[in-house]
Amino acid sequence: MGIDHGVGKAVKKAVQTDGKPRDACGVFAVYGHEEAARLTFFGLFALQHRGQESAGIAVADGCRIRERKGMGLVSEVFQEENLKKLPGTMAIGHVRYSTTGSSVISNAQPFLVHHADEYYALAHNGNLVNAQALRSALEDKGSIFQSTMDSEVIIHLMAPHLKDRFEDALVNALSQVRGAYSVVMLTKDKVIATRDPRAFRPLSLGRLDHHGWVIASETCAFDLIGAQYLRDIEPGEIVMIDESGLRSLNPFPAVKPCHCIFEMIYFARPDSQVFGENVYLCRKRLGHRLAKEFQPGVDLVMPFPDSGNYAALGYAEESGIPFEMGMIRNHYVGRTFIQPTQIMRDFGVRVKLNPVRPLLRGKRVLIVEDSIIRGTTSRNRVRNLRENGAKEIHMAVSCPPTRFPCPYGIDFSSKGELLAAREGSVDAIARFLGLESLHYLSLEGMVAATGMPADQFCLSCYTGNYPIVPPESLEKLCFEKQGK
Amino acid sequence: MGIDHGVGKAVKKAVQTDGKPRDACGVFAVYGHEEAARLTFFGLFALQHRGQESAGIAVADGCRIRERKGMGLVSEVFQEENLKKLPGTMAIGHVRYSTTGSSVISNAQPFLVHHADEYYALAHNGNLVNAQALRSALEDKGSIFQSTMDSEVIIHLMAPHLKDRFEDALVNALSQVRGAYSVVMLTKDKVIATRDPRAFRPLSLGRLDHHGWVIASETCAFDLIGAQYLRDIEPGEIVMIDESGLRSLNPFPAVKPCHCIFEMIYFARPDSQVFGENVYLCRKRLGHRLAKEFQPGVDLVMPFPDSGNYAALGYAEESGIPFEMGMIRNHYVGRTFIQPTQIMRDFGVRVKLNPVRPLLRGKRVLIVEDSIIRGTTSRNRVRNLRENGAKEIHMAVSCPPTRFPCPYGIDFSSKGELLAAREGSVDAIARFLGLESLHYLSLEGMVAATGMPADQFCLSCYTGNYPIVPPESLEKLCFEKQGK
Amino acid sequence: MGIDHGVGKAVKKAVQTDGKPRDACGVFAVYGHEEAARLTFFGLFALQHRGQESAGIAVADGCRIRERKGMGLVSEVFQEENLKKLPGTMAIGHVRYSTTGSSVISNAQPFLVHHADEYYALAHNGNLVNAQALRSALEDKGSIFQSTMDSEVIIHLMAPHLKDRFEDALVNALSQVRGAYSVVMLTKDKVIATRDPRAFRPLSLGRLDHHGWVIASETCAFDLIGAQYLRDIEPGEIVMIDESGLRSLNPFPAVKPCHCIFEMIYFARPDSQVFGENVYLCRKRLGHRLAKEFQPGVDLVMPFPDSGNYAALGYAEESGIPFEMGMIRNHYVGRTFIQPTQIMRDFGVRVKLNPVRPLLRGKRVLIVEDSIIRGTTSRNRVRNLRENGAKEIHMAVSCPPTRFPCPYGIDFSSKGELLAAREGSVDAIARFLGLESLHYLSLEGMVAATGMPADQFCLSCYTGNYPIVPPESLEKLCFEKQGK
Amino acid sequence: MGIDHGVGKAVKKAVQTDGKPRDACGVFAVYGHEEAARLTFFGLFALQHRGQESAGIAVADGCRIRERKGMGLVSEVFQEENLKKLPGTMAIGHVRYSTTGSSVISNAQPFLVHHADEYYALAHNGNLVNAQALRSALEDKGSIFQSTMDSEVIIHLMAPHLKDRFEDALVNALSQVRGAYSVVMLTKDKVIATRDPRAFRPLSLGRLDHHGWVIASETCAFDLIGAQYLRDIEPGEIVMIDESGLRSLNPFPAVKPCHCIFEMIYFARPDSQVFGENVYLCRKRLGHRLAKEFQPGVDLVMPFPDSGNYAALGYAEESGIPFEMGMIRNHYVGRTFIQPTQIMRDFGVRVKLNPVRPLLRGKRVLIVEDSIIRGTTSRNRVRNLRENGAKEIHMAVSCPPTRFPCPYGIDFSSKGELLAAREGSVDAIARFLGLESLHYLSLEGMVAATGMPADQFCLSCYTGNYPIVPPESLEKLCFEKQGK
Repeated sequence: MGIDHGVGKAVKKAVQTDGKPRDACGVFAVYGHEEAARLTFFGLFALQHRGQESAGIAVADGCRIRERKGMGLVSEVFQEENLKKLPGTMAIGHVRYSTTGSSVISNAQPFLVHHADEYYALAHNGNLVNAQALRSALEDKGSIFQSTMDSEVIIHLMAPHLKDRFEDALVNALSQVRGAYSVVMLTKDKVIATRDPRAFRPLSLGRLDHHGWVIASETCAFDLIGAQYLRDIEPGEIVMIDESGLRSLNPFPAVKPCHCIFEMIYFARPDSQVFGENVYLCRKRLGHRLAKEFQPGVDLVMPFPDSGNYAALGYAEESGIPFEMGMIRNHYVGRTFIQPTQIMRDFGVRVKLNPVRPLLRGKRVLIVEDSIIRGTTSRNRVRNLRENGAKEIHMAVSCPPTRFPCPYGIDFSSKGELLAAREGSVDAIARFLGLESLHYLSLEGMVAATGMPADQFCLSCYTGNYPIVPPESLEKLCFEKQGK
Repeated sequence: MGIDHGVGKAVKKAVQTDGKPRDACGVFAVYGHEEAARLTFFGLFALQHRGQESAGIAVADGCRIRERKGMGLVSEVFQEENLKKLPGTMAIGHVRYSTTGSSVISNAQPFLVHHADEYYALAHNGNLVNAQALRSALEDKGSIFQSTMDSEVIIHLMAPHLKDRFEDALVNALSQVRGAYSVVMLTKDKVIATRDPRAFRPLSLGRLDHHGWVIASETCAFDLIGAQYLRDIEPGEIVMIDESGLRSLNPFPAVKPCHCIFEMIYFARPDSQVFGENVYLCRKRLGHRLAKEFQPGVDLVMPFPDSGNYAALGYAEESGIPFEMGMIRNHYVGRTFIQPTQIMRDFGVRVKLNPVRPLLRGKRVLIVEDSIIRGTTSRNRVRNLRENGAKEIHMAVSCPPTRFPCPYGIDFSSKGELLAAREGSVDAIARFLGLESLHYLSLEGMVAATGMPADQFCLSCYTGNYPIVPPESLEKLCFEKQGK
Repeated sequence: MGIDHGVGKAVKKAVQTDGKPRDACGVFAVYGHEEAARLTFFGLFALQHRGQESAGIAVADGCRIRERKGMGLVSEVFQEENLKKLPGTMAIGHVRYSTTGSSVISNAQPFLVHHADEYYALAHNGNLVNAQALRSALEDKGSIFQSTMDSEVIIHLMAPHLKDRFEDALVNALSQVRGAYSVVMLTKDKVIATRDPRAFRPLSLGRLDHHGWVIASETCAFDLIGAQYLRDIEPGEIVMIDESGLRSLNPFPAVKPCHCIFEMIYFARPDSQVFGENVYLCRKRLGHRLAKEFQPGVDLVMPFPDSGNYAALGYAEESGIPFEMGMIRNHYVGRTFIQPTQIMRDFGVRVKLNPVRPLLRGKRVLIVEDSIIRGTTSRNRVRNLRENGAKEIHMAVSCPPTRFPCPYGIDFSSKGELLAAREGSVDAIARFLGLESLHYLSLEGMVAATGMPADQFCLSCYTGNYPIVPPESLEKLCFEKQGK
Repeated sequence: MGIDHGVGKAVKKAVQTDGKPRDACGVFAVYGHEEAARLTFFGLFALQHRGQESAGIAVADGCRIRERKGMGLVSEVFQEENLKKLPGTMAIGHVRYSTTGSSVISNAQPFLVHHADEYYALAHNGNLVNAQALRSALEDKGSIFQSTMDSEVIIHLMAPHLKDRFEDALVNALSQVRGAYSVVMLTKDKVIATRDPRAFRPLSLGRLDHHGWVIASETCAFDLIGAQYLRDIEPGEIVMIDESGLRSLNPFPAVKPCHCIFEMIYFARPDSQVFGENVYLCRKRLGHRLAKEFQPGVDLVMPFPDSGNYAALGYAEESGIPFEMGMIRNHYVGRTFIQPTQIMRDFGVRVKLNPVRPLLRGKRVLIVEDSIIRGTTSRNRVRNLRENGAKEIHMAVSCPPTRFPCPYGIDFSSKGELLAAREGSVDAIARFLGLESLHYLSLEGMVAATGMPADQFCLSCYTGNYPIVPPESLEKLCFEKQGK
């Protein structure tokens, strides 16, 4: 998509992601709690790993909607005094990475409009693949967009019909968009949640003390606020919650789900239930599978903190090889940072992690990684281990090579930046990373570890088989992203 | 109008205006200077007295428009590093008081949209009287508004026609709005300026070093940047400036002008030419007229700094009575301030002005004021003078009693708050203010001092004869403003 | 003195003084008011013209002293929430320019120490001429200084004797320092005020509602807070105020006073009584004298706002020549500012003042100035008047040529930067400024206008006769200041 | 100590320590690198765990010392632009917790003075036990202290002798102080490092690229900047580094070392060498010992992240019981935080850690902890585990019960707050924590795991045998700390 308005103040992407992909966002909603904004704050806090670029909360009190959003972490955007200015019993919230639209405050969500004396707010996880075409058609008819987010299209599609029934306007709008959406909406007196028919991204429903409802991208948000996980929002379902209770609509024909398997591998928090499975246990099973497929002779197995922790634990458990935490993480690595200058080369990698030299000296080491995207960070860490005395370094990755970009809401680097797409063979990748040996978990092994059937997943980043073809060629998508 | 979105962060109106009316805004534009944003900064700086609530600059470089705006003074919103991020040779700028719409950042101007891959920015001085009705109709058709400003209506009226010719879209939009507008617009490659057919508010055209053009609400902005004043934008004229030069359109039938006489009396800077006249000399003539109409026996004549300075000078000149500066202004009175508590009553009036007691003790004093709106500040100052020993206090005002609110862009208090409307007789007003005697300049005297014919002016705040009837009753307008 | 610690954060001197000299500081104290800090805030606010670089308040509650100080204006350093954290019924305050010591926060006053379980705070206006020698001797014995201020010497001289009687320690310390000091001090339960035997700088005593006391550099501070002016602190007097009331000490032999006449000419606010005289009326008398000494043929007389206002009024009154306000001041000129670039030369002078061209065109103009120090600003303004059409420009200055630097607390430029010292003859100065003619008031005329005998004044900046010779040669003093 | 000046702005202790003791500080120094300040920034960054309340850097360029310090983390106090203002090839730095003195900026270190035209800066880890008595004596003689830090005494003791030889002044001062000190000092042209004769706190010396020297509290700082660890500063040694190289002085008679064993157990980073031993391996050996002493029947062993990680790994390795990471840490837990209100009780414990319920349900769990001080956090976590389904919860602690406060620089809670001192028996502690069983590692086992002889350690927090008796009774010390 990548429209650049040039409006507003661009924010530097200082977030440190170690070359890992970044998710599309996290959403949260609450209905029927007298401290709805505060609860949403905690919900977003638990979902912070899904988006660290901006955060926002919109809250309704039966008459109007108030909102606060800003660039930065949830705890940076919201302080006690802000929350006090957000009264009401209904709220939605959002944390964001910019998978479409620029990294500017005007693109932060929830997206709030005041239209014909009513308020509407929307928060969205996922990517719409036909947003650009819909936008152009709307602009020709006179619609003026405020942001560069694909999500704004939904509101504009609804606008001419809002003087009639809200839910008809919503169904009408959703019937025109294609792609991935886990959406929560807020009006002055109701909360709405919906998930696209293929259910690419997670979205769960919970109960709060018997008289309130909560909705969240991941169940770890329910744990934090003491809510009870009930079930996932169904593929294609629209849930509307107001004073008469919860109503469920299923206006669209059923299709096969396409859950994003990368949520299991990397994105979701290990303490969440995602697509019905516990992530921690699933990742340990990925480690078990790895140990069955690949056992070079090593003295110890370890993760790079904190990426492959659970797969590494599973690997050690299955293989009987000792598990160590051989690189120590500096807990104070924040987001603003002073750069070492040329005089002090090679600091970068050591600022975050420091190897325990007496532990590693002369050892044969197996690193278990969850995934490799660009590979540059891994390469630096491998070199750092080598300089600290490791004799052999092997690596096992808990998924197959990631070869194709994602149009459904994950900010993979373009195809050109995907290490596996660029280097081709596993041997070449191992050479690039400086490893004695490298093994990727097989597709079958990965799916088997989830405990779910393969046809429930979107595996397109491994296979290139896209369940919904985006209108622009993927290469073009990549190119635009590189140009950013 | 007074729609309150509830969107955005409300800003406290801390601006100290001494109970004086506040103007609707100041606008500025430049075409053809390589430091367009910097020039606009200085232009707005010279126009700061027309609006101290927010400031903004939009600049075009032939490809796109960049913008910065914020709450506060021009010098607070813009620093050196901001200006550097606003490259381009065309710019428009705006300083604002909130006569319609809330005092929030989303209501700051210029108003910028990105529509169908083009950028449009607009800055507006004046009030549209049918904005609310137009907005409702547009919303019914699906338009989503971003602000509560009347000015936004113009862009939405243009939007469906922008894929055709820009100037047709503009003429079509302007043909639908009624009220006062001195507007400057910016596209990626041209600057547009237009003034409503009755030309309520000033708007002047200047030349910059023979190859650039400037437009400003007042000519004092030209003086600061070293530009040459050419002429006023004509009533109803649309001026378009692009690489082929300046073109003038006059698409609307001519009507009699209705210049706001209050610009001469109070608003405009004394060093400006407004409606073709020099303001300083005009105000001295108002003082001459006052001296002819009213001469109580006094020892000295003085203004309250800095409101009636020039009329007071004129009065002293005509009457031969000594001119004094008997109240000393604290130059450090800013906008944030610590309040004296109950224990320290009566500080308020002294914080800003301190009478020179040895000068005033036992004297008969004539205060010359430009105008009286609410009267509370004047009353406090009169009492303060009395406490410092003045024996008699008389007052002469350089315009008639202000009895009617203004729907064309001046933020007079509602009718209920207008002292002259509430108290009725001049004697009652004098009693309220605590004066020995009070004289208002006659309507004829005021108009004669301007040197222009009476039928060129809007005199409705004195006479109640409105040249364009606003759709809502004026009483309702007042009520809404009070409710704020 | 000019010791540069290099400790702390230097603050850019952005204060705009139009080339005028800057005073040494203002001090304020209150005893016996339950909102002592708030009262001190207002007192400092009234004294802001005496120092705009830093501000501070120390407050005592009978047990301890709390303090807040910072760089910037009083209204910038203090907000409502700060004042709330400063409880107590006794307070002292200070506003500062850096005449000695660097412009850093560690040099802001009041200077507060915690010594042997007691607190002592001090605020000082004036310069000590033997501070450097005293400091060296103290350091040799082991004293460690915290700032580069001459004022700190007083506390260190007191420290070894503080375990005995406070007032003996103070008299002992003051008997060792030489130079100008108007000082207020605070302990946990008393307020002390003292003035050097020659009484260079003003210091007045006032009564607050019959049960409280106030002390201030100028009486305008009393007016603001509604206090009654009683008398000046006497030369060499020490006033101690505690629960047993006010006590006065006169431990030093009497000498002839040396009041700084520049307080009357320029520094003090026109609404203050200084050295027993009203400043406004005194300045008008300076204008009368000027008119008697010098009457070139002109059409109008005017000040440059706001420097020579009252002398100009006096001149016009005496001469009968019309008084005009021919240059309009932009009230929004603040302290941070965007610079015009080379492309926009000559903005500088116009940003602050704009001449009223139709008033000045073809006229013979007399400018009345209070004083001329460096002359560069005046020269620019004269040129600006000329460019706006003035036919002849004459100038009358309300004091003699300023030819010698001041070691007693006024930050005159060094001798090399004093226009009159550099150019020599009045004719040369007139040429430098671009004037048709120039007249300085005679020394006799100046003194006569004050209504006080000449031998009560320090006239050393005009005559070079220094009542206390500073240990370093004045040339060295100048040199150091230039090196800054 | 706990002198409260009441000077300056107190800072809320928002640092989250989970009830763990806080160290006295970290110090760092560099000599002979052209980016000394930047290197010191990175050194302090690696030592951040030793003090999170304030950070400071002083840098010398051969002529003068410049400094910056502030409250907060190293990365908050320093930004790129600050470092640029700190040129020079020598520097010292400090991170701090307030074990003596208030938590205010005036107590941040390095402590810098400008004395008799020379600069001296000092940074100190440890506590002096006779600081109060020395201070009183100095004040009686006229010294004025700037802070409430014990460290300031050293400078004042040196001051009267500084006009003679620096090293004599230092030896003289150190001969008078008693207690724990690992100190680095800076003059305009040299760096000094010294450690008290008992060497309570660590201090190491390193080499930088063959021509520079570095000193740090822990060797992990050397790893980050690529320096080579050479040796520890010896007990009682003074190291002076200047242009003629490194010189070592040993002016004090040798005594037996008293290394703080708690550095091994908890404080030091696992990747540091402390007192000659690698901390990671030492902690694993503590786990081995624990497994030999205590084996309840459990299904899994886990730490509370991230306190007992390495001892837990050692325990699992020795016992063969599976190691799990059963509580997931929220990586975004920062230092400012919105409090859950009463309506949302019990959030507190879950904000930081969330148990993986499917992993723990029905299991018998062994928690391995490094140490228990107050026990409240542990109790909450145990309850949280129980609520999430753990069937049995046992705990093993890698040191004996902590029963006595520390006067040498560790901010243990007062004796009344030490869980083991208050509850007495291990059974009572287990009941308080809600455990099925609890085991503390034996004193012998702990010492044996270090691999060093017992008489090299200070074990007073376990045994109550203090190697240097503090002048105030320990109970009084405790009482004062509670009163804070």
